[in-house]
Amino acid sequence: MTTMAAEHSRPTLKDVAQRAGVSIATASRAMADNPAVATTTRTRIQALAAEMGYLPNAQARALQSSRSNTIGIVVPSLINPYFATMVTAVQNAAEGAGLATIITNTDEHPETMAASLTFLASHGVDGIICVPDEACAEQLNNLHAQGMPLVLIDRELTGSPIPTVISDPQPGMDAAVSLLVEHHALPIGYLSGPLSTSTGRARLEAFQQACRNHDLEPQLVFRGGFEQEQGYQGATHLLNHGARALVAGDTMMTIGVLQACHRAGLSIGEDISVIGFDNQPIFALQPRPLTVIDQQVDVMARQAFTVLHGLLAGTQPTHNHLVTPTILIQGDSLMKGPQP
Amino acid sequence: MTTMAAEHSRPTLKDVAQRAGVSIATASRAMADNPAVATTTRTRIQALAAEMGYLPNAQARALQSSRSNTIGIVVPSLINPYFATMVTAVQNAAEGAGLATIITNTDEHPETMAASLTFLASHGVDGIICVPDEACAEQLNNLHAQGMPLVLIDRELTGSPIPTVISDPQPGMDAAVSLLVEHHALPIGYLSGPLSTSTGRARLEAFQQACRNHDLEPQLVFRGGFEQEQGYQGATHLLNHGARALVAGDTMMTIGVLQACHRAGLSIGEDISVIGFDNQPIFALQPRPLTVIDQQVDVMARQAFTVLHGLLAGTQPTHNHLVTPTILIQGDSLMKGPQP
Repeated sequence: MTTMAAEHSRPTLKDVAQRAGVSIATASRAMADNPAVATTTRTRIQALAAEMGYLPNAQARALQSSRSNTIGIVVPSLINPYFATMVTAVQNAAEGAGLATIITNTDEHPETMAASLTFLASHGVDGIICVPDEACAEQLNNLHAQGMPLVLIDRELTGSPIPTVISDPQPGMDAAVSLLVEHHALPIGYLSGPLSTSTGRARLEAFQQACRNHDLEPQLVFRGGFEQEQGYQGATHLLNHGARALVAGDTMMTIGVLQACHRAGLSIGEDISVIGFDNQPIFALQPRPLTVIDQQVDVMARQAFTVLHGLLAGTQPTHNHLVTPTILIQGDSLMKGPQP
Repeated sequence: MTTMAAEHSRPTLKDVAQRAGVSIATASRAMADNPAVATTTRTRIQALAAEMGYLPNAQARALQSSRSNTIGIVVPSLINPYFATMVTAVQNAAEGAGLATIITNTDEHPETMAASLTFLASHGVDGIICVPDEACAEQLNNLHAQGMPLVLIDRELTGSPIPTVISDPQPGMDAAVSLLVEHHALPIGYLSGPLSTSTGRARLEAFQQACRNHDLEPQLVFRGGFEQEQGYQGATHLLNHGARALVAGDTMMTIGVLQACHRAGLSIGEDISVIGFDNQPIFALQPRPLTVIDQQVDVMARQAFTVLHGLLAGTQPTHNHLVTPTILIQGDSLMKGPQP
């Protein structure tokens, strides 16, 4: 096993206390986040412990002799096939390395994420891959500081030291806007995800930057959520405001756009131009296959597992942020524009 | 808490040993399935322990004072939206009862299921809802005998005493065949799931029974698997053999049928009649909404959770088999037949 070297060299609480120049009792309280220890001392000891690769709690110590060979993955939805694909790709990569995977679905509730992380960390998983909720930033940063092998995927936490795997929406969004401009499919209506998520913000910024890159006036934007219903409402709203093209900001809103066009009796590629988000197999099965911005979630999932697997073996990643470019996959869902 | 009464009365290993008339050491070995104890004695002690509500291992005993308030759910796929819907519905029901849910996906591998069950049982979940693989029947029956609250869903294990929640394919299949006969859409090509699953067998039998009920000759059958690729291959095969209607045996094969019709340039409802399986939102978003056999997976998921919740409170279900009828949801995916 590749992890044995790391196992043998794992430091004890005594080692941490000695290096920090405090008593074992103080080190123990600091690792337990006990307010009896001053915040600055706690932070210093936790950082030192993380640097030394010390695992603090009873479960983690037990793992030194008995790993569970199981990792956890925490996602905000399973109804959203983007996350179902992510989970399955992580699991396949983990299986290839002899590790089992358990999954929790937070349904975008921070309190469910908090409980999930506590359960996973205290019930013997060796490491966690998590799509973070910003409301859980402190808990995640603490787990990381305490030495839990942890990788963030899809969304990022500003200023967090936790290794993170995300996609860059800009290349795909540039190609999408460029294609719509070529097809004279203006104005564009963009269905944005929630601005409380890094992906919601980054994709909206990428869309607006792509518009500026093409010297376009500000286009139409609907501020929605990562849900089919929001996609349906947003598409209806944008169509009522004269949008001749719709660009969706995630899988679920893409499904909502299909639903809105279907109900409105609009034939995609003939009456309206549509660019979806994520390369779901079902999007290729429309009467005209959908043009989509693809995040390459399989690549991201494998990268996240590779980083986690490295952490389990005691290896820090050389880069803390791994960024996969989005790409445009051309289908046949744009109206033919007038010839120039 | 509704479970306290059951908690206080939970018997010890000593109680089991006394009732069985054996030493505590023998009772302990029997509960651990140690072959040093004769099979008949082991079975007798395990059955007695289950009857008494005894929980055997260290984790389970620890639970007497500290429940994790977490249940596990084990499914064979998350890419299949039928199971993603099931998991999410169980989780919603559990949340309503103040319980968290952790999920494992076996990818239809019995060894992954075996490892999942072992992990869940030994890492403190209070109960498990499982789509069983027949290769894991013994492990599941043992967990049940050892007092782990356990409910099977979707698939059943012949002769198992574990409470089970399934759907009955017959009503939906009868209505489907009846509608196809009315539309003169014969011969019918049926895409069967794997006969190694109870659902694969029961749905094929239901289709054949429905054909007999309508005095039809044996129709075309493709024996596939619960995968999109099998649905694609099966539909292609059945179309090449003259099928004028396709009936799919699960969600993933329905997607494969859509793909095959799409690639063959066949317009569903005009060039070919199609009846899908499971009421996925995406099936209603076809140019003509798909007619589907609906298992009412939300109902099944809530039933399974209700039974599990009862077991956690020490209540045995009044019926060991809960069966939800399938229903036909009419879309517009059948060709208009000649008028009689």
